[in-house]
Amino acid sequence: MVKELNPRARFLMGPGPSDVNPMVLKALSTPMIGHLDPQFIEIMDEVMEMTRQLFQTNNQLTSVISATGSAGMETCFVNLLEPGDTAMVCVNGVFGNRMCDIVERCGAKLIRVDAPWGEPIAPGQVKDALEKSKPKLVAIVHAETSTGVLQPLTEISKMVHDAGALFVVDTVTSLGGTQVKVDEWGIDAVYSGTQKCISAPPGLSPVSFNTKSLEIMDQRKTKVQSWYLDLSMIRKYWTGAKRAYHHTGPISMVYAVHEALRIVHQEGLEARFERHLRNHKKLLDGLEAMGFEFLVAPEYRLPMLNAIKIPNGVDEQTVRARLLNEYNIEIGAGLGDFAGKVWRIGLMGESSTPNHVNLLLGALKDILG
Amino acid sequence: MVKELNPRARFLMGPGPSDVNPMVLKALSTPMIGHLDPQFIEIMDEVMEMTRQLFQTNNQLTSVISATGSAGMETCFVNLLEPGDTAMVCVNGVFGNRMCDIVERCGAKLIRVDAPWGEPIAPGQVKDALEKSKPKLVAIVHAETSTGVLQPLTEISKMVHDAGALFVVDTVTSLGGTQVKVDEWGIDAVYSGTQKCISAPPGLSPVSFNTKSLEIMDQRKTKVQSWYLDLSMIRKYWTGAKRAYHHTGPISMVYAVHEALRIVHQEGLEARFERHLRNHKKLLDGLEAMGFEFLVAPEYRLPMLNAIKIPNGVDEQTVRARLLNEYNIEIGAGLGDFAGKVWRIGLMGESSTPNHVNLLLGALKDILG
Repeated sequence: MVKELNPRARFLMGPGPSDVNPMVLKALSTPMIGHLDPQFIEIMDEVMEMTRQLFQTNNQLTSVISATGSAGMETCFVNLLEPGDTAMVCVNGVFGNRMCDIVERCGAKLIRVDAPWGEPIAPGQVKDALEKSKPKLVAIVHAETSTGVLQPLTEISKMVHDAGALFVVDTVTSLGGTQVKVDEWGIDAVYSGTQKCISAPPGLSPVSFNTKSLEIMDQRKTKVQSWYLDLSMIRKYWTGAKRAYHHTGPISMVYAVHEALRIVHQEGLEARFERHLRNHKKLLDGLEAMGFEFLVAPEYRLPMLNAIKIPNGVDEQTVRARLLNEYNIEIGAGLGDFAGKVWRIGLMGESSTPNHVNLLLGALKDILG
Repeated sequence: MVKELNPRARFLMGPGPSDVNPMVLKALSTPMIGHLDPQFIEIMDEVMEMTRQLFQTNNQLTSVISATGSAGMETCFVNLLEPGDTAMVCVNGVFGNRMCDIVERCGAKLIRVDAPWGEPIAPGQVKDALEKSKPKLVAIVHAETSTGVLQPLTEISKMVHDAGALFVVDTVTSLGGTQVKVDEWGIDAVYSGTQKCISAPPGLSPVSFNTKSLEIMDQRKTKVQSWYLDLSMIRKYWTGAKRAYHHTGPISMVYAVHEALRIVHQEGLEARFERHLRNHKKLLDGLEAMGFEFLVAPEYRLPMLNAIKIPNGVDEQTVRARLLNEYNIEIGAGLGDFAGKVWRIGLMGESSTPNHVNLLLGALKDILG
């Protein structure tokens, strides 16, 4: 017979999930209620309002998709694209590549704008590409989890709008840990995840769509290829006057996100972003003192995801295994082009504390000598 | 500032979610670990094995999709169908209709086999339809949540296989409450939900695919239209030797399902199914004594989902609202063709107890006089 769960607790310092606050774990264990219960509708309304505040947007359709961040990505593309449309995707890491894969599965024509992994997309690249084609949308990753690059958005946003396209942004790793100003930056469609700087468990994807995006959806000639992610129906459940049933909402996960968002707003966005920056600097100082090099140039470094080069002669798998098994600290391996070449150290949400930084620095000193 | 969650507890006697065992709520609050942590891989392995036992199958690819039951439905169709394929769908309620919608979104040719709502599909209907066409798959709902009909499967399964098609079955409401013999009944692909007779929270979809289904997938000429639900990648995370990252697994929900499945198997499948039947009979006796009529003929009634006709002159919305507000009992309204005509009373998993039956009968007597 299978035994009751009793995993050893970890310090989660990888690319997500991050540590979850005990109050969020407590909220998860709130007794079940129905997905059409007026009490649950009220909870959904509160989640929407707190998500709007976090995205810094007034968009009515700001809610959570009932699946993880990658499903949020897919939601944007399957609702905004129809077969034959053209989509431009900026790629400088794993998640830009994932966007390309999804765009092609939508039957859309893909135009890639590539930058080297570890560097941001230069506005000039987008400008050049927009001169040669007229895409329906341009998509970009704000915080590339595979490389630790923070992508400046405002200049590119203006170019995209001048070209008459929609601007779609991945904020999976940035939301809750640094500024994400959806309205001010002219983002038309945006998605994120719950398990990074929001510090809820993985399982839901916060999303927001402005009226221009909704108009594009209303003008579709074809049905959205995914039933589960079809916003024309999901909207009715989240924002409709009658709150019509679409699928059974993931009640417990919505409880968790509700509490995690409460904690975010109790701390305050500015204080939270400042904390992420402060602990990043502490980690940076400590690692540089040990001789580590960061992958990304200083001005484009994400505070919550630190990609560092693995020194020559270090057996990276052994070090990660010892961190996990002897110190209960999880850090992330390199992904894609960077497999075996970098470590990814997350300081996200509840995992962004001076104690986390001290624990990791101490353990690395123990192991590397 | 939004307040901490504190919803009034309910007795969940609708079409799902059902009541959740306190041990499952406790499992939900287990501290977070990473989706690639060896401890989590072990938990996934245990979930797969317990899910196999529940589906009564040896299929290696038996796991949970990271989204609700409707996403499990979509997973089956998007992976098994390619544009231009033909799919036959049996329809006698809302969920058969949903299957049709998804089949069309896959670009497949749809052949419907319709029976009146509240009645099962007759094997002869399928036979006739199979004589006129040669579909790639035939899909049917085992337990139609919108009507309370239990669909016999073995005779139809044989016809489907004789015609060289795959047999795809929706067991969202039946799994964990009555027999679902995937291997013995020749089911090639099957999906379910966690929030019905398994009594975990909503949010995941147990699925199982046999080798014939996997071969069909391996022979695809086109990519699966959904990235998130593409089993060729999901398989590598759940059953591959290297457990390759696809998306971030919904850790807390997997914890919950792990505990809920443990409880299912501690009770034992036969005892559990017998309990569902016993409480169904108690409810039936009580409701018939009050003059209520069941929608479905006795031999096709689901033990866990009881559709009863709303008596003339009864304001159904007022009664349901009073049950919820005064007694904290949730029952389900009619869906689709049956809106305003039937109530749906669920006795699923933890909600299938004599106390639940007594509470509901007592409250209905209070309200209806």
